[in-house]
Amino acid sequence: MAYAIMCSGGDAPGMNPAIKKFVDYLYKLDIKPYFIYDGLEGLIDGTIKEAMHKDVAGIVNRGGTIIRSSRSKRFYEKRYRQQAYENLQKYDIEALIVLGGDGSFRAMDLFYSEFGIKFVGIPSTIDNDIYGTQYCLGVDTALNVIRENIDRIKDTASSFSRAFVVEVMGRECGYLAAISAMVSGAEVCVIPEIDFDREKMLKRLQKEFQEGRRYMLAVVAEGTHTTYEIKEWLEKSLHVETRISILGHIQRGGSPSVKDRLIAFEFCIKAIEHLRENKNSNSVIVYNDGKYSFKSIEQVVSKKYQIPTWVLESLNYLD
Amino acid sequence: MAYAIMCSGGDAPGMNPAIKKFVDYLYKLDIKPYFIYDGLEGLIDGTIKEAMHKDVAGIVNRGGTIIRSSRSKRFYEKRYRQQAYENLQKYDIEALIVLGGDGSFRAMDLFYSEFGIKFVGIPSTIDNDIYGTQYCLGVDTALNVIRENIDRIKDTASSFSRAFVVEVMGRECGYLAAISAMVSGAEVCVIPEIDFDREKMLKRLQKEFQEGRRYMLAVVAEGTHTTYEIKEWLEKSLHVETRISILGHIQRGGSPSVKDRLIAFEFCIKAIEHLRENKNSNSVIVYNDGKYSFKSIEQVVSKKYQIPTWVLESLNYLD
Amino acid sequence: MAYAIMCSGGDAPGMNPAIKKFVDYLYKLDIKPYFIYDGLEGLIDGTIKEAMHKDVAGIVNRGGTIIRSSRSKRFYEKRYRQQAYENLQKYDIEALIVLGGDGSFRAMDLFYSEFGIKFVGIPSTIDNDIYGTQYCLGVDTALNVIRENIDRIKDTASSFSRAFVVEVMGRECGYLAAISAMVSGAEVCVIPEIDFDREKMLKRLQKEFQEGRRYMLAVVAEGTHTTYEIKEWLEKSLHVETRISILGHIQRGGSPSVKDRLIAFEFCIKAIEHLRENKNSNSVIVYNDGKYSFKSIEQVVSKKYQIPTWVLESLNYLD
Amino acid sequence: MAYAIMCSGGDAPGMNPAIKKFVDYLYKLDIKPYFIYDGLEGLIDGTIKEAMHKDVAGIVNRGGTIIRSSRSKRFYEKRYRQQAYENLQKYDIEALIVLGGDGSFRAMDLFYSEFGIKFVGIPSTIDNDIYGTQYCLGVDTALNVIRENIDRIKDTASSFSRAFVVEVMGRECGYLAAISAMVSGAEVCVIPEIDFDREKMLKRLQKEFQEGRRYMLAVVAEGTHTTYEIKEWLEKSLHVETRISILGHIQRGGSPSVKDRLIAFEFCIKAIEHLRENKNSNSVIVYNDGKYSFKSIEQVVSKKYQIPTWVLESLNYLD
Repeated sequence: MAYAIMCSGGDAPGMNPAIKKFVDYLYKLDIKPYFIYDGLEGLIDGTIKEAMHKDVAGIVNRGGTIIRSSRSKRFYEKRYRQQAYENLQKYDIEALIVLGGDGSFRAMDLFYSEFGIKFVGIPSTIDNDIYGTQYCLGVDTALNVIRENIDRIKDTASSFSRAFVVEVMGRECGYLAAISAMVSGAEVCVIPEIDFDREKMLKRLQKEFQEGRRYMLAVVAEGTHTTYEIKEWLEKSLHVETRISILGHIQRGGSPSVKDRLIAFEFCIKAIEHLRENKNSNSVIVYNDGKYSFKSIEQVVSKKYQIPTWVLESLNYLD
Repeated sequence: MAYAIMCSGGDAPGMNPAIKKFVDYLYKLDIKPYFIYDGLEGLIDGTIKEAMHKDVAGIVNRGGTIIRSSRSKRFYEKRYRQQAYENLQKYDIEALIVLGGDGSFRAMDLFYSEFGIKFVGIPSTIDNDIYGTQYCLGVDTALNVIRENIDRIKDTASSFSRAFVVEVMGRECGYLAAISAMVSGAEVCVIPEIDFDREKMLKRLQKEFQEGRRYMLAVVAEGTHTTYEIKEWLEKSLHVETRISILGHIQRGGSPSVKDRLIAFEFCIKAIEHLRENKNSNSVIVYNDGKYSFKSIEQVVSKKYQIPTWVLESLNYLD
Repeated sequence: MAYAIMCSGGDAPGMNPAIKKFVDYLYKLDIKPYFIYDGLEGLIDGTIKEAMHKDVAGIVNRGGTIIRSSRSKRFYEKRYRQQAYENLQKYDIEALIVLGGDGSFRAMDLFYSEFGIKFVGIPSTIDNDIYGTQYCLGVDTALNVIRENIDRIKDTASSFSRAFVVEVMGRECGYLAAISAMVSGAEVCVIPEIDFDREKMLKRLQKEFQEGRRYMLAVVAEGTHTTYEIKEWLEKSLHVETRISILGHIQRGGSPSVKDRLIAFEFCIKAIEHLRENKNSNSVIVYNDGKYSFKSIEQVVSKKYQIPTWVLESLNYLD
Repeated sequence: MAYAIMCSGGDAPGMNPAIKKFVDYLYKLDIKPYFIYDGLEGLIDGTIKEAMHKDVAGIVNRGGTIIRSSRSKRFYEKRYRQQAYENLQKYDIEALIVLGGDGSFRAMDLFYSEFGIKFVGIPSTIDNDIYGTQYCLGVDTALNVIRENIDRIKDTASSFSRAFVVEVMGRECGYLAAISAMVSGAEVCVIPEIDFDREKMLKRLQKEFQEGRRYMLAVVAEGTHTTYEIKEWLEKSLHVETRISILGHIQRGGSPSVKDRLIAFEFCIKAIEHLRENKNSNSVIVYNDGKYSFKSIEQVVSKKYQIPTWVLESLNYLD
């Protein structure tokens, strides 16, 4: 019996701990672990290799993924999926664990419906934008990298009586921005989910600057495409020198935090047990209110992730 | 109307974010915030001061507590509690928020029963050993400080074919040790909660060293008092040069992690709301399965905290 | 007798340790220490305050500057310099220590020539672009912040077979970019000081990608204004997906490194001693080949800083 | 033509960057690079392997050494040195680079005198205790790890009105302790090089505690064996609760700092060039006042390293 693991889509810290646990745990169960390198592209091209203990020695503290990831257009053509299936047959791989986001889960679901290869998806994205789970692998590490760097920006902002507009990742989801704004004590937070009341905000800021505020911080989700606009708005309306900082891909890297290592282990072990106990599986493992459970792909891709109410309410404390 | 905040017992990262939120949030509610410096000692000695916005500017990223903490024997004498009560009367302080552990909560409960000063306890200790809550403020930061330093120890351990025995904090509770062992990939973990089967462990380790293992890591909870014993055992039975590293008080410091800042904010806001909504309160705010709720002091001090089953089970993966 | 300290121009990590040493050391010498807040603007506006031990307690590990900095146009008008002089007279301040760059030193030199207020400039800028000194305060911390974040970018770059163009600070000086490229193992480095031979570089990269290279890193000095150009060039000529990361102001923040703390202390102590020993001083303290010495402002502003030859030679190892 | 590299004695951060540069640079020169694993033990046992580019990919940011180190008693027996020589002959290795301390250099010198295998020693030890060089590889990283952790200890010390005695590495040399005490603002520093005047110190501390000091920090070099003694002395004479923190092996690990990466590269390149230019070499590369040069083993082992005067003088600022 053999299982394989692969990463698909954007990488996230915590993938390596999951990969390590996959190998170690399967060896205990006497199931052969395989790596599929380079995501769906590697599945098509057959870059598949039996995993050894030594491949995963010392990787638990490394960011990124040692088996690499990819985005694949070819996988949407039937003939490449056929080829992918044949690659798995060669190694008698009967189940897959896929670290990725909802796009990747959809692709795997199609593959499952055609060839019956059972799989479990592990939600892995620093954007935390997958419906049906409160947590996606990598978010805690990304948030702490952001925190550390915004703390640095505050050092220089406070030294120079300036405003800073910090752009953090998050395409259609403002989760990273919202949490980062809260924990960094930002005065302004702009996310796709909330209409940003500039009039009201401006009044508050003007009052605060009159009362002695010297610097301020705005955190903006990249998906709002308003970073430069906010900068100009602050400069014009508050007459405060304003700088932009786009955190960019540093948010994807870094040694996985304790939470991401723990959740990687739990996600992986429970995913393996699910595959062992079920003849069929096109499920995603999810984490809600401290509990792990499984959802169908359909459920997970059916709706858009919503930021929890308590976060949105907390943002109101910002105004 | 006035509320006060104080820290009591061992300090924990996250206390400063809670203190900041306390001040900011009360100002919004038009309730006067007071600091009681130096814990119960300061309550007795009347080192109480109205809190200003500027007192808490920029403290969210600092470890420790700006209002300091203490342990107090005097508070167990009635006359000092009487004096403490009178101090609060001077400032019309009608409610307290107390960041501390179960010892401090017990002391406050006695004070409450005598003088009717309502309070909410916020569980704050890196040991995570308070019954009734899955999480205590400071644990996530402590775990990440441990992780970072054990990762460093692995650098040198792997360079030199050595065993390391790392002692982490935790008096009667092995939570920190257990989680740290898991996320660092330690081979051995010794905690008060589990009988450590040396025979079985030794067999496994001997096999692994024969098969090529070059270094190993044991994580030991300080409360087991076995650090030196484990070192000698490893040296004698495995003939591997063994070093001890006692992480000590570095585990209590450090800039609060995102999780500890978030939970500090939520604990504090919900505690304040609880005090506003209730005429009496001798409660502790707790966090379980993603939800916040309140428990009476009695409940919290009635039993000993138990490490969750999933952690103990995961440790079995170590053998 | 009284001395004052101020920061002028861009802030740099290490300013706070210098400020702390200024206060502690002057107290030992029985000279009154003063803070001039907000740089030359504060000198004009008279935001001057006697410095206390408690003002500097615990600041040694904080980035930025607690006395803030500024850029001032007003100081170039005689009447404001007159006003500045009168402010200093009020407090009997007879000497200044100025943490800043060559623009600030020039301004102080003019002030000195008019009013005879002696001063020592401490070269402080993460750009390391002051002629006559091998080292400016803040550079080591900035380099380590860059290193840490480029290491994170490499995590994600290597996971995804991508090129990254990382823009680091440095207007007319490529020092930060050059050193960062070296210590991060970047394949490409673009700085104002070197003509970048694209043909030659391209050949090398093409060969390496053919031989199996999967990702690459280019470090670009902001002053070259070529970040987007390099991105497009890499995408077009190498057909590799390329991302930009502009590190921005995170490079200015962060807890000062050991080197920056040490040099801050030495700069400050030697500057004070120089002021005590000399009736007149319009000097800058410099650090070359392990030795501290003093140069006149004229010398320091006479030429443009040149990156040391060994750095430029080391960059050749990149091709 | 072939050269080999090995590590001997205690590991130090910066060894991996040196190893990477060794491989990359020799490939450029068309000289075959070899790894000798496990130090002198591996030299005897013949664990020698040709080094590939891929062996050193991504190691520049890792602490420790991928080729491991050891201490060897066998090497002091002639027959094992004979065996070592024969191992080198097998691969036509004509020169060695040895990362280590003075003990290792002495051993290599003996080997050189017998078999004429030329070598360059690269001083590598966090203790910074090698005579003839102001800097040894690894010191800057170790100092920054200490700094970061003492900053954490200060968080908790200041929260609790306590004294802390922090023990740092350094057997017969107080360099680490002295610099760490300075940059952390410690009140007390105990090193083997200075007679510690307790009477004088006590008076100063008593005065400060009377004037309001709430906590204090003592940094002690491990080689003084006084950690527990200092603790008791502080408790008895100052009546302040005192805790010990022994930093231990975390000081040896961690991602190499910018300085250690740079110096590793320069040490390695210059060592290689020296070997190419000289038919014979039993030298150590040293770094003094910003310049690199070579010294004979004899010179380096002839005397004991002395802490620079400016450091000892700076410590006087502590009293």
